[in-house]
Amino acid sequence: MSGTNFKSLEECLEKHIPADELKEVKRILYGRSDDNVLPLPMEATKLAAEHGFELKGYRIGAKQEQMRKPRLVKVGAIQNSIVLPTDAPLEKQRDAIWQKVTTMIKAAAAAGVNVVCMQEAWTMPFAFCTREKFPWCDFAEEAEHGPTTKMLQELAKTYNMVIISSILERDVEHGDTIWNTAVVISNRGRYLGKHRKNHIPRVGDFNESTYYLEGNTGHPVFETEFGKIAINICYGRHHPQNWMMFGLNGAEIVFNPSATVGALSEPLWSIEARNAAIANSYYTVAINRVGNEEFPHEYTSGDGRAAHKVFGPFYGSSYVAAPDGSRTPGLSRDQDGLLITEIDLNLCRQIKDFWTFRMTQRLDLYAESFKRASQLDFKPQIIKE
Amino acid sequence: MSGTNFKSLEECLEKHIPADELKEVKRILYGRSDDNVLPLPMEATKLAAEHGFELKGYRIGAKQEQMRKPRLVKVGAIQNSIVLPTDAPLEKQRDAIWQKVTTMIKAAAAAGVNVVCMQEAWTMPFAFCTREKFPWCDFAEEAEHGPTTKMLQELAKTYNMVIISSILERDVEHGDTIWNTAVVISNRGRYLGKHRKNHIPRVGDFNESTYYLEGNTGHPVFETEFGKIAINICYGRHHPQNWMMFGLNGAEIVFNPSATVGALSEPLWSIEARNAAIANSYYTVAINRVGNEEFPHEYTSGDGRAAHKVFGPFYGSSYVAAPDGSRTPGLSRDQDGLLITEIDLNLCRQIKDFWTFRMTQRLDLYAESFKRASQLDFKPQIIKE
Repeated sequence: MSGTNFKSLEECLEKHIPADELKEVKRILYGRSDDNVLPLPMEATKLAAEHGFELKGYRIGAKQEQMRKPRLVKVGAIQNSIVLPTDAPLEKQRDAIWQKVTTMIKAAAAAGVNVVCMQEAWTMPFAFCTREKFPWCDFAEEAEHGPTTKMLQELAKTYNMVIISSILERDVEHGDTIWNTAVVISNRGRYLGKHRKNHIPRVGDFNESTYYLEGNTGHPVFETEFGKIAINICYGRHHPQNWMMFGLNGAEIVFNPSATVGALSEPLWSIEARNAAIANSYYTVAINRVGNEEFPHEYTSGDGRAAHKVFGPFYGSSYVAAPDGSRTPGLSRDQDGLLITEIDLNLCRQIKDFWTFRMTQRLDLYAESFKRASQLDFKPQIIKE
Repeated sequence: MSGTNFKSLEECLEKHIPADELKEVKRILYGRSDDNVLPLPMEATKLAAEHGFELKGYRIGAKQEQMRKPRLVKVGAIQNSIVLPTDAPLEKQRDAIWQKVTTMIKAAAAAGVNVVCMQEAWTMPFAFCTREKFPWCDFAEEAEHGPTTKMLQELAKTYNMVIISSILERDVEHGDTIWNTAVVISNRGRYLGKHRKNHIPRVGDFNESTYYLEGNTGHPVFETEFGKIAINICYGRHHPQNWMMFGLNGAEIVFNPSATVGALSEPLWSIEARNAAIANSYYTVAINRVGNEEFPHEYTSGDGRAAHKVFGPFYGSSYVAAPDGSRTPGLSRDQDGLLITEIDLNLCRQIKDFWTFRMTQRLDLYAESFKRASQLDFKPQIIKE
């Protein structure tokens, strides 16, 4: 049973653990003993069957309130492998991914999804391990006026859907600089704005600062017709203070489009986005790509292994976590998939009232402590015998 | 299979999942496919058998380095129920718990434990749900000169062991005020100092500010012979910025003595202390009490249920998490237990070098953002259509 043959934790638990104990396992592991499956329309399941992607639907509810109606939102998370070999012409590579993902967005639309998000740098292979500038930089496009945004604006309008598109951005007006950026398109097809990845990894195969530096767009929250949403791109999920600022700016759902592989981060995957949902009383949507990606030229990994061309496997396992600490099962570790989760945004404020983490956060204390800790003459608070 | 009959998640997984798949389950869930059991001496296992407490031992290693020797430390975590009924004379209640825990400390000593930590408010029932000031406030004692500290100083000296004792503190010099405080005693039996709980819950059965308010001792790290240690008391584990300040002050192990019950927090338990270990590149030790506690007078829970006298069950499940995201199995949900974990402190700096979360944390950005967010005229960063 090697890691690559292990489809998902959930499948394994379902297969082996008796029903009565499975309820307890799920309660402890996932915060709810019942998966609370969302029925999906035939049109969506048919598309999934025809095109060979996994399709799962779940519900996360909230208490009925007297002063507010439920605020039900259907959130879609798309995980996928690339389509063509990485030495195919760039435009063909991109168009093939566009086509695959467009089908998944159509399935999402058929199921009534309101907000959909793709994985990090979804229009391209995650080639940053190669350290080659060419041709990979040529995948970069303008956030507002690039072809991917234009293409998605049509889909957003057609399907009345907010779309979050995490791309490699080329900022033509600022010296052709490159950024790792999430573009938000409103359900009317308008460009709402963008957010640039705040924390840039220098770990394992990735010193992504070869390509782009720390984001300069702060922690924007996009107020859409379907709730206040924000995006914490990939490595930013390791930084609790990053998650926290999106919460302080009012986010109700924070998406985490990612690209990460097993040996590096798989045991962390189920912890970090879920902890963020708990600590900040909002929903989080963790999305990771799947598959292996083979590059034309060999590269080294800085870990003593021989030079090689294949990177992966990315382990998928996309999931949604709720402010009450519960979460959905994950998509598979190895297959394209669309995860649809119907959530009630009222749960965010209900949990804020219940746990009162914001009221007890002592923000002024930490503003001051962080300031001291960031100064050159900082003396840690140490007590010695 | 009700929650109270479910001994532990680990026991269930071991029982039902075939060995080859269990390795993958453990790798994904716990970050290591092998429990890496620490052999324990007969003297310790004998004490555990005689006195009916669970005893488990694990190892968490680090890479061999050329410039530093391994820094192996054995950490002990003690979870326990109270002993006498809560209407017994206070001194008898406390002495009976002292006696039970002293036996467990002796077992820890036999196994060579260097640093041991008990659960939150370990000398008493966790009576704060009653909202009665009397007699519970009378369990409070002075941090430096109280009887529990004196008793433990003898044990610490005898066994060459650092002891962390989380008690209800009475500060006689500051108007007889009461605090929720962890006392640190060095392995030479000296009082090293104290830390007061930074974040106070107002949730479920507990508005603990009935008894004590937010701590005023900052985020001290105690430099001991066995590493730099800190204490994040109970509800402080929900606040990532609290964990972070202990890290910024240099902590290598952060203990989280707690008292928390199933319905409230069990699905959060395995997430928060582990996320803190990941985010801050240090070890965390999460400790929770076990059993039900019945109080003399009925109290209400503010949740529509009838007035009642029993609080619980506390679900135990104490565990150790490592900076690489791995963790030990948990102690049981319902039994007294001593968890001994041999850790290599070198792993902290190794993981800091590997993941570089501190180098990429942008502390000045967050100092400034938190300052703005804490001001009355704060305007969240919101983008609207």
